[in-house]
Amino acid sequence: MSVNYQQYYLHQRPHGPATDSDVRVRAVEVDGLNDGQLLIKNEYFSLDPAIRGWMSDEPSYMPPIELNAVIRSSTVGTVVESRHPDFAAGDVVYGLNGWEEYSVSDGYFLTKVPKDNRFPLHYYLSAFGAVGLTAYFGITDAAELKAGDTLLMSAAAGAVGSLGGQLAKSMGCRVVGLAGSDEKCQWLIDGLGFDAAINYKTESGRLNAAIAAVCPDGVDVYFDNVGGEILDAALLNINSNARIIFCGSISTYNAAEPVPGPYNWWQVLAKSATVKGFLVSNYFPRFEEGALAVAALLDDGKITFKDEIIDGFENTLSGFNKLFDGSNKGKLLLKL
Amino acid sequence: MSVNYQQYYLHQRPHGPATDSDVRVRAVEVDGLNDGQLLIKNEYFSLDPAIRGWMSDEPSYMPPIELNAVIRSSTVGTVVESRHPDFAAGDVVYGLNGWEEYSVSDGYFLTKVPKDNRFPLHYYLSAFGAVGLTAYFGITDAAELKAGDTLLMSAAAGAVGSLGGQLAKSMGCRVVGLAGSDEKCQWLIDGLGFDAAINYKTESGRLNAAIAAVCPDGVDVYFDNVGGEILDAALLNINSNARIIFCGSISTYNAAEPVPGPYNWWQVLAKSATVKGFLVSNYFPRFEEGALAVAALLDDGKITFKDEIIDGFENTLSGFNKLFDGSNKGKLLLKL
Repeated sequence: MSVNYQQYYLHQRPHGPATDSDVRVRAVEVDGLNDGQLLIKNEYFSLDPAIRGWMSDEPSYMPPIELNAVIRSSTVGTVVESRHPDFAAGDVVYGLNGWEEYSVSDGYFLTKVPKDNRFPLHYYLSAFGAVGLTAYFGITDAAELKAGDTLLMSAAAGAVGSLGGQLAKSMGCRVVGLAGSDEKCQWLIDGLGFDAAINYKTESGRLNAAIAAVCPDGVDVYFDNVGGEILDAALLNINSNARIIFCGSISTYNAAEPVPGPYNWWQVLAKSATVKGFLVSNYFPRFEEGALAVAALLDDGKITFKDEIIDGFENTLSGFNKLFDGSNKGKLLLKL
Repeated sequence: MSVNYQQYYLHQRPHGPATDSDVRVRAVEVDGLNDGQLLIKNEYFSLDPAIRGWMSDEPSYMPPIELNAVIRSSTVGTVVESRHPDFAAGDVVYGLNGWEEYSVSDGYFLTKVPKDNRFPLHYYLSAFGAVGLTAYFGITDAAELKAGDTLLMSAAAGAVGSLGGQLAKSMGCRVVGLAGSDEKCQWLIDGLGFDAAINYKTESGRLNAAIAAVCPDGVDVYFDNVGGEILDAALLNINSNARIIFCGSISTYNAAEPVPGPYNWWQVLAKSATVKGFLVSNYFPRFEEGALAVAALLDDGKITFKDEIIDGFENTLSGFNKLFDGSNKGKLLLKL
């Protein structure tokens, strides 16, 4: 089978938000597969803040996207042709592929959607994918939460934050979220059951006091997805022996210059806090357990999950940049 | 009994190194004790980097020294008069008092030197005091070291660093130290058995490569006493699941302006490292166990401990400032 398709590739490393000068589209032709390869027709791309990190060449937990290579991304799609023994045409699969209409894969890190799947397909990039499992293992394991603890969640209306906050509520914690609009804050409280929410935009410059006002007993766990000013304000409100789950730093991903760490770094010592760099990949042996647990919580109505789906391959890059201006809510996906 | 004595007090909060405009000397007269009080004639002051932190009003693990109050410090001395039921004249005691020739104490946090003490008196401010116990519990407990691990120690010729490095060697670790002169580096290797040492002054600007050269298998534990450029370079050399013991940040204590946290903060996430804010006070229930263990290691010749003793009350402040220019070696003390 021969296919022609469109693909986003990294032309140059971005300084600041990725533009269409940095990330370009080109036509690709695939004419036949080698032994061990399969061809996937992608149906959804995952649009994740982490992808912006992979466009940079700062040392990180996986190699940067190489110049001229496809933009790396989780996708879910259908196998249209296979010369791989473990996959057949018609299988629905998800894994790390790229922003492209079709992907040629060698099967590594590719997982089949169960034949008896009863969930929307894109859940395999959200609730059951990296973000769902990040929230699940971050909250139920790394954070060492116990009932009655106060959890402060940044980017609380985002994919990880909205799920993580609900998981902590289901564990009997007090949960306070930070989000970028009053409407999102209302959704956290009314829609997801958060105890309080702070609009970090209107409270900018006085976040320390805003957090203190709604966390009168201090913060036992701060789950950080953003870094920057919010991290600094959170550090002034942590209790002794607090845990800080360092899951992301979205406020700094688009920075063109090196960004300093938290100014209130000293508080980590002063409160004998623990900062844990969190990578969901460390939980790989427990992924199936996690996905089943998240599915059961969804089935029981204990958590809800919101995906924001953008339509159309041509909107991938502009959609991706919504992650960084605070305008998206829940897990962001691109539907082809 | 009536005594007249000299005392250092905090006139104003320092910006930068503490000067004699900030920390002044005055005469104090004590004429008789109240019930429950005792009078100590101090023999040694402890000169610790932490004291500079207490002169600032940044929130920390204990309240700042109040303006016009004596400079808080551990001391060891002899009880000359007591109206406290647990102490008698002639008892030798150590605890948190101040930079003053005599201290009036209510007995809180005051410990007696054992009658059968066989060590020099000032050891109760060094090997058996906060710095010795910091090294002991930091290395044997918080760092989660195992034989074969590589430990990188900053301020390695300092009080905590020199003892901590030796403790890690006794546990079968590879130990690399950072110090401020070639002579100190040689002492770490020849005198204390470190595997390698780096002069952070001559290597400034290329510390990342200097660490990489002597830690070819990466750093499993970075024990941080200094912050700043050294912390940033260390972060570029940590292994996955590294532990960073955040014990101090001496490079920033004299800063007049807010100092940012590490620029390479992202590496904590990228390596799924754990940063532990370390306060020896959290180990209070195990202090006696720790002091006995350190004493046994000294007796067995497994560790040596170097005190640097400055003579004369009038040299307290200038001696204290030696802590910040890299010129002192081992635990710094003032002998009255």
